[in-house]
Amino acid sequence: QPTYMANTSLTPEQLEKLIDLSFSAKTRAHAPYSKFRVGACLLTQSGEFITGCNVENSSYGLSICAERTALVKAVSEGHTNFRAIAVSSDLVDNHISPCGACRQFISEFGLMDIYLMKPDRTYIKTDTDALLPFRFTGEQLDGKKIQLEEQ
Amino acid sequence: QPTYMANTSLTPEQLEKLIDLSFSAKTRAHAPYSKFRVGACLLTQSGEFITGCNVENSSYGLSICAERTALVKAVSEGHTNFRAIAVSSDLVDNHISPCGACRQFISEFGLMDIYLMKPDRTYIKTDTDALLPFRFTGEQLDGKKIQLEEQ
Amino acid sequence: QPTYMANTSLTPEQLEKLIDLSFSAKTRAHAPYSKFRVGACLLTQSGEFITGCNVENSSYGLSICAERTALVKAVSEGHTNFRAIAVSSDLVDNHISPCGACRQFISEFGLMDIYLMKPDRTYIKTDTDALLPFRFTGEQLDGKKIQLEEQ
Amino acid sequence: QPTYMANTSLTPEQLEKLIDLSFSAKTRAHAPYSKFRVGACLLTQSGEFITGCNVENSSYGLSICAERTALVKAVSEGHTNFRAIAVSSDLVDNHISPCGACRQFISEFGLMDIYLMKPDRTYIKTDTDALLPFRFTGEQLDGKKIQLEEQ
Ligand SMILES: [Zn+2]
Ligand SMILES: [Zn+2]
Ligand SMILES: [Zn+2]
Ligand SMILES: [Zn+2]
Repeated sequence: QPTYMANTSLTPEQLEKLIDLSFSAKTRAHAPYSKFRVGACLLTQSGEFITGCNVENSSYGLSICAERTALVKAVSEGHTNFRAIAVSSDLVDNHISPCGACRQFISEFGLMDIYLMKPDRTYIKTDTDALLPFRFTGEQLDGKKIQLEEQ
Repeated sequence: QPTYMANTSLTPEQLEKLIDLSFSAKTRAHAPYSKFRVGACLLTQSGEFITGCNVENSSYGLSICAERTALVKAVSEGHTNFRAIAVSSDLVDNHISPCGACRQFISEFGLMDIYLMKPDRTYIKTDTDALLPFRFTGEQLDGKKIQLEEQ
Repeated sequence: QPTYMANTSLTPEQLEKLIDLSFSAKTRAHAPYSKFRVGACLLTQSGEFITGCNVENSSYGLSICAERTALVKAVSEGHTNFRAIAVSSDLVDNHISPCGACRQFISEFGLMDIYLMKPDRTYIKTDTDALLPFRFTGEQLDGKKIQLEEQ
Repeated sequence: QPTYMANTSLTPEQLEKLIDLSFSAKTRAHAPYSKFRVGACLLTQSGEFITGCNVENSSYGLSICAERTALVKAVSEGHTNFRAIAVSSDLVDNHISPCGACRQFISEFGLMDIYLMKPDRTYIKTDTDALLPFRFTGEQLDGKKIQLEEQ
């Protein structure tokens, strides 16, 4: 299990780049069904930026969000520790927020800052814990269980 | 879109039954991979109790949690308005909490009370909003979007 | 792991009922995003009929198909051995076919007949093996693996 | 919708590289729950190699397979046309085969060759159509539907 990282602070330049890349990632969305484009950008602990977009499927339930695309891409390149993720959509009036599935997927990799963007570059800064209170974790899978005969 | 329901209050008898049924649902879990059994019970606005258990798959990513089992079962029987859901596991030391995917799935049907159970019948009472702050909704899918040429 | 069942033959009455119930199940679909309604009906080895419909989510990737709804519902009621499943949609010109995710989910419970329906009651009769050649199974998860140092 | 590609033929050098990269991708799997590592490598129509590994989650149902990781990564980098994908695992006695969900996900991008590998470099060469007969497609979502009053 990845451990919780303390260092989530970004320089102003890193934050600008994170936002820019989340915007440009959005343009590669495969969203023929929802027409709802989402982009995401991760910043790893080692200082790399890794982007993702949503990739939908004709069987809707197989669609993968931008945040999860960025995360599996990062893992496939050897990164499992992250400082921050920014999420962007085309919605003018909403700071776009990760769906519950993405929150759970982010949570697998511990605490990180999460920037909920609007196209006008305003954002809400939140984090893993705030978006997923009482979160279910891998440690729980190995927790002490009742004896089945007690049932 | 289902609208938010005001009436989530349960009688003591209803709560006892909700808890009992979430415990017994757990015994039907198909969890050969995780050995982690989960049960859930929904109470509909019309007063019916509908149970679910987790159903895992050899391709782990296709596994469906107890909460979602209860919800799709309810929908398939014509119910889309709910007062409460209780979730139970075998964990002695944790009040079991829905994963992010289940929170999102619950959220599709609006506000309901969520009881996080321990086998000793103690619980944490929470709700959709508390477990999924800044939640993403179907209304947002239809929200006003930037003109693509603005990009 | 459920073992492969030999008895998949249905009486004409059972087949009529299976088809009828897959049609009526479709009317309970929660499909506000795709407007694509699907119904399914399972016949258990013990002779019970269990229905499902698709239940979509604003986060498309969390949508659950009719076939999986029927299966998790069946498991939650204690059934894990099946003879057949019928799948129905509103498509006039296509015999509706399970998506790959549903084929994998069906496969967890072994061999069953699968009826791909059109609204005019014509069907293609196929089965788990034919729809998922070279299928991945739970036994493989426990198969003999290379020693990691060999890598 | 991507159209079906005719050119799936690989040079011997491309095939060797595809296999090698699917093996090395496997070493980056995040598979703490199943301990079952899978690697995949895509070859795009433009001649690029893009790798993926499985990324599991404590909520098993959110796990993403190696094939889907490679595909979303490719899409996020602007690729939607593919010649081939190779899939590798640690199983000594099985040519590893994509789960149904991955077959559906592959199918979104049309016909490609699929190499099912064993660690000894032997393979079964198959393709999208062979692994997903009667496949469900995005075109069907827009197909002619029965009038609802007919129901
Ligand atoms: Zn998401
Ligand atoms: Zn869950
Ligand atoms: Zn399906
Ligand atoms: Zn897969």
